[in-house]
Amino acid sequence: MDRDRILLTPGPLTTTLRTKLAMLRDWGSWDADFNAVTARVRASLLKIVHGEQSHVVVPLQGSGTFSVEAAVATVVPRDGHVLVLDNGAYCKRAARLTSLMGRRCTVLPFDESAPVSAAAVERQLAQDASITHVVLVHCETGAGVLNPLPEVALACERRGKGLIVDAMSSFGALPIDAREVRFDALVAASGKCLEGVPGMGFVFLRKAILEGCAGNSQSLAMDLHDQHVYMEKTGQWRFTPPTHVVVALAEAIAQFEAEGGQPARLARYTDNYRTLVDGMGRLGFMPFLDPAVQAPIIVTFHAPGDPRYAFRSFYEAAKAHGFILYPGKLTQIETFRVGCIGAIGRNEMQQAVHAVELALQELGIASGEPAI
Amino acid sequence: MDRDRILLTPGPLTTTLRTKLAMLRDWGSWDADFNAVTARVRASLLKIVHGEQSHVVVPLQGSGTFSVEAAVATVVPRDGHVLVLDNGAYCKRAARLTSLMGRRCTVLPFDESAPVSAAAVERQLAQDASITHVVLVHCETGAGVLNPLPEVALACERRGKGLIVDAMSSFGALPIDAREVRFDALVAASGKCLEGVPGMGFVFLRKAILEGCAGNSQSLAMDLHDQHVYMEKTGQWRFTPPTHVVVALAEAIAQFEAEGGQPARLARYTDNYRTLVDGMGRLGFMPFLDPAVQAPIIVTFHAPGDPRYAFRSFYEAAKAHGFILYPGKLTQIETFRVGCIGAIGRNEMQQAVHAVELALQELGIASGEPAI
Ligand SMILES: Cc1ncc(COP(=O)(O)O)c(C=O)c1O
Ligand SMILES: Cc1ncc(COP(=O)(O)O)c(C=O)c1O
Repeated sequence: MDRDRILLTPGPLTTTLRTKLAMLRDWGSWDADFNAVTARVRASLLKIVHGEQSHVVVPLQGSGTFSVEAAVATVVPRDGHVLVLDNGAYCKRAARLTSLMGRRCTVLPFDESAPVSAAAVERQLAQDASITHVVLVHCETGAGVLNPLPEVALACERRGKGLIVDAMSSFGALPIDAREVRFDALVAASGKCLEGVPGMGFVFLRKAILEGCAGNSQSLAMDLHDQHVYMEKTGQWRFTPPTHVVVALAEAIAQFEAEGGQPARLARYTDNYRTLVDGMGRLGFMPFLDPAVQAPIIVTFHAPGDPRYAFRSFYEAAKAHGFILYPGKLTQIETFRVGCIGAIGRNEMQQAVHAVELALQELGIASGEPAI
Repeated sequence: MDRDRILLTPGPLTTTLRTKLAMLRDWGSWDADFNAVTARVRASLLKIVHGEQSHVVVPLQGSGTFSVEAAVATVVPRDGHVLVLDNGAYCKRAARLTSLMGRRCTVLPFDESAPVSAAAVERQLAQDASITHVVLVHCETGAGVLNPLPEVALACERRGKGLIVDAMSSFGALPIDAREVRFDALVAASGKCLEGVPGMGFVFLRKAILEGCAGNSQSLAMDLHDQHVYMEKTGQWRFTPPTHVVVALAEAIAQFEAEGGQPARLARYTDNYRTLVDGMGRLGFMPFLDPAVQAPIIVTFHAPGDPRYAFRSFYEAAKAHGFILYPGKLTQIETFRVGCIGAIGRNEMQQAVHAVELALQELGIASGEPAI
């Protein structure tokens, strides 16, 4: 039995066969046919955030973290001061890479079970005039919290600060409108809600700041300004692009558009989310987050209180029934995560709940109810 | 007509259908099955350079340049001094990324039509004791020159200097034996002579220097020490791996081993090279390099002297006949390049020569003879 498992993870995720089939060709990275694919992808991405007037989009090789690091390195001047709004693991990573590259970095901590507070950001910006940029993670995939992007963007705009948004796990699913929300950089990747395969990221850069970004980056590979200038001039990537990943993304975007774009994707993921939470609830599982702050992207569940529960065996049992779960990323409480994204729908979510039910039975766990 | 063109480029290159078919599955990057693929790839790579005893290998997301930059960032301490041996475009890029990240960098220039001189390196190292590391590009893909890796390695070892080798376009095809040639880091990528698809690189690091590399990198994403420590502990990549690229590489390596490993690959590429040069010679084309310094990887040809020649139209005509050529990368002379690598053999090289012949005819160019 070698049927593919359904990936209930925040990426890589389950993609359509059509998307994967696009990888059955080899493309010359210098060739006009491939440049046309790159151009098409870039145009489509800009449309998704309504950024055609205000922004450019620069693709970058590597995983999503590479693009986050590239965004900070490119947008923040060497003597800049970055305020990272921290309510989870990906925020902490953004702070770490910012400090490591030598940019001054201040972390504003929030509880990981709640969104960051735009009012607190505004207070901090008022207090410390040396801050030049704010980093916000849109959907904190660590717990699954949706952060208030429009409100934080407004605070930054009012205070004249740059805003860098890590929209890795939200882009394509949650609405982001560059005409209404001002950001200097917004980062996402191929293998998330656009349902491509992993291997590249992309960063939207506000045109108004673009010129000022020249020379900021101490990394050649991650210099998005250099990548942008070269791409505008030649239509090509500076260094060998992951050609198969790029054409798969182009194919995934075509399906995204055919499905109805961001609103349709959000509707499907929201349905996945509800199907999951309802079904898991019937088994006794309790989501970690208040539904009011939960993005329909990935759900953190409390681990069952039953002493026979261990994530390892639970994971293996669910895998044997065809579904790949994801470990929790919280430091204090035992949890696991289930993704709602990818080329999956209500059927798969119902089957996933059923797989979890069978896993519990096999492990002799009476219910998913947490200890507390 | 939508048949794939044959890529006569230094990567991305033509891969087998079997390699591409491996990408028709989605893998969870946290899952044991995928970790096993990563482990298998790493073990195979180490075997290719006979580095099981002396080295580890650390894969990295992104294009080859990312891995070159990561190698320098990880291996060279912040107060290090790098000597880049420069006989071409990729050497210059290595120097640029070294300076940009703030490492002191000295360039030792050589003619781009000849290998770098180990004797000159030895003299330079004797003169300037502050140099800590040497960067050598094994096969300078810019013109196609093979550089004397064993001799330069010996000079570095004698003088107690670290050696970082960019073996991007040679690894897997030209012999490299870590038991006989001492290097601190050696860099290659998935989409070159191993005939995988592009999207990841990998760096061999000498075990003896590994511990000392902690904290060198100012880039989180490119910190190979951090990547290594995490991978040893968990079997996983730190950040989302390009799963489809990794499994394609595993499949490509299986075919590499079945073909007979590096010696067999070198034999096939050498045959490709001879078939190409002989055939192009009959059309009047002249290689730029002395055959004695030419690697059988990519051949730089002088452009035809005929005034009707222009690379653009020549490229398009050859493409119409099924072959993708590559532009020259020399600054002074008009040239173009033809790769000998990829999942292609004598048939394809003969057909490529024939395609060039037809292209000349269609453009009304009597012969490939250069002006000089
Ligand atoms: C919000 C967020 N930021 C950053 C990342 C890191 O992306 P990658 O693992 O591709 O480096 C992720 C991955 O899930 C994410 O969800
Ligand atoms: C010798 C050498 N170094 C570095 C590179 C850069 O690799 P990439 O284009 O994958 O960044 C290449 C690419 O052909 C190369 O041949």
